[in-house]
Amino acid sequence: MNEIRIFSPATVANVSCGFDVLGFCLDSVGDEMVIRKTDKKGIYITKIEGYDLPYEAEKNVAGVSALAMYADAKPDFGFEIEIYKNIKPGSGVGSSSASAAGSVFGMNVLLGNPYNNTELSYFAMKGEALASQSEHADNIAPALFGGFTLVKSVSPLEILEIPTPNNLYATIIHPQIEIKTSEARAILPKDVALKDAILQWANVGSLIHGLHTNNYGLIERSLHDAIVEPHRSKLIPLYQDVKAAAKTAGALGSGISGSGPSIFSLCEGINTAKSVEQAIRKVYANSDIEFDTYVSKINAEGMKILNN
Amino acid sequence: MNEIRIFSPATVANVSCGFDVLGFCLDSVGDEMVIRKTDKKGIYITKIEGYDLPYEAEKNVAGVSALAMYADAKPDFGFEIEIYKNIKPGSGVGSSSASAAGSVFGMNVLLGNPYNNTELSYFAMKGEALASQSEHADNIAPALFGGFTLVKSVSPLEILEIPTPNNLYATIIHPQIEIKTSEARAILPKDVALKDAILQWANVGSLIHGLHTNNYGLIERSLHDAIVEPHRSKLIPLYQDVKAAAKTAGALGSGISGSGPSIFSLCEGINTAKSVEQAIRKVYANSDIEFDTYVSKINAEGMKILNN
Repeated sequence: MNEIRIFSPATVANVSCGFDVLGFCLDSVGDEMVIRKTDKKGIYITKIEGYDLPYEAEKNVAGVSALAMYADAKPDFGFEIEIYKNIKPGSGVGSSSASAAGSVFGMNVLLGNPYNNTELSYFAMKGEALASQSEHADNIAPALFGGFTLVKSVSPLEILEIPTPNNLYATIIHPQIEIKTSEARAILPKDVALKDAILQWANVGSLIHGLHTNNYGLIERSLHDAIVEPHRSKLIPLYQDVKAAAKTAGALGSGISGSGPSIFSLCEGINTAKSVEQAIRKVYANSDIEFDTYVSKINAEGMKILNN
Repeated sequence: MNEIRIFSPATVANVSCGFDVLGFCLDSVGDEMVIRKTDKKGIYITKIEGYDLPYEAEKNVAGVSALAMYADAKPDFGFEIEIYKNIKPGSGVGSSSASAAGSVFGMNVLLGNPYNNTELSYFAMKGEALASQSEHADNIAPALFGGFTLVKSVSPLEILEIPTPNNLYATIIHPQIEIKTSEARAILPKDVALKDAILQWANVGSLIHGLHTNNYGLIERSLHDAIVEPHRSKLIPLYQDVKAAAKTAGALGSGISGSGPSIFSLCEGINTAKSVEQAIRKVYANSDIEFDTYVSKINAEGMKILNN
């Protein structure tokens, strides 16, 4: 096999109570990428469609992760990478992670799968760091493993695959505003109240248990964030209205996707997810902010090979 | 049935990362209680052996929980309670909870089991509050439900039963020193670093996942407490030595049981648990502090009916 076309999914990091550790993978939202072996050694980005991103491998997240893996694998050939970008950079659903993880996933298949998903995550984090100035796996992990993931630790990197209830859907709304990562970080407190932290780890434990036991009611009761949401939600216009509308329409719960501005809602069943989509569209329809919405099953598979 | 004899187990609350929410139940350590129907209405504590505790129902934790349930059930008869106490009050392995939960468990059986375990926990918390000045279910929950429990919330009371790996054992050492609950509380910080809180909820999520998947290695890597142990361990002489000795002897991890002074170690298999017992006994043998040790399988059943 000399060429592969893949679907590289969008992802939701943090997931309310799971700030900095939890994430899940979307199914119907993502980029496509073509990875191709080439006689000339090195990593070459040969096509980018959708958004204006750098072609030099060293300045492109897909290129940086590819270079990290290439330096380790040391094949006697090179790779060309084409990126068909559907996930808008800065939307908060793992745009850079999709690129960073997609290139190394595709290369790994063409190399005969010498690396496991944790090793691929390690390389992808190098690309992610170019975009977000820190090596983290919040979006990388669900993109590569699929389903729900818990990043237990970054050093050493340990990623846990949490079971995903079969009828779990996400509705995403992306208000087209810009939130600077630096601002989303600066707004977080250095210290938090112990009583709030206890609530948070009770909810993380409950959410993991709810995912293991297909307990949608428990998932609903666990989707609270006493720590980060009170601060970051201020950066997203109409956040509380979206959350309330989603709840009224039947969502299990809503939260900030990554550091925003996208807002996710988890729902039991596609019909509820579509009702939630209609309800939250109405919230932003009355504003002058442009927005997109998506409904997606939680993608238990992660990356997909479209042809080979 | 007019009389029942029960085993009311000792329990370990907090479990390292799970401060204020997690607990587990011991098998070979606990009190016995006899509950008996009597024509005379009311709650009567008729015998207490082992430790010197008040006989007036209103001043005894087993009596207070019994009275709370009695006021709700309104039977046309009364109950006598005999308490054969093996768990030393103040040892940190749920002595008051064993009494508070045991009385209502036994009464419930004699009433034909009108209450579920969560309702029994609610009554038992009233007794617990007499001993600890706050209504909490950290030890009540594992005593009544057995195995590992997660108290998701106290109001409304929601207790989750977490699966327990079959080969999981606990080794407990109880150094015979007194730690005042007020002191153990006062030493805790009001605020904690967000980065430490994140470590803690990553570990809580991982521990729940490890218990669901029988992953002893993950349980081991999750038994860390970045928040409470650094403070409370100062109140327990030789704490770090016990922890180090247990680890060297093969324990998955150790932590403060409840607010101490007992220290628990979790182990895979009874042989390791016994080796850990020998190793930690040596630590205290060189001190002038008296101590007891116990080895117990994690008790998945909770309360036991000894005869009826």
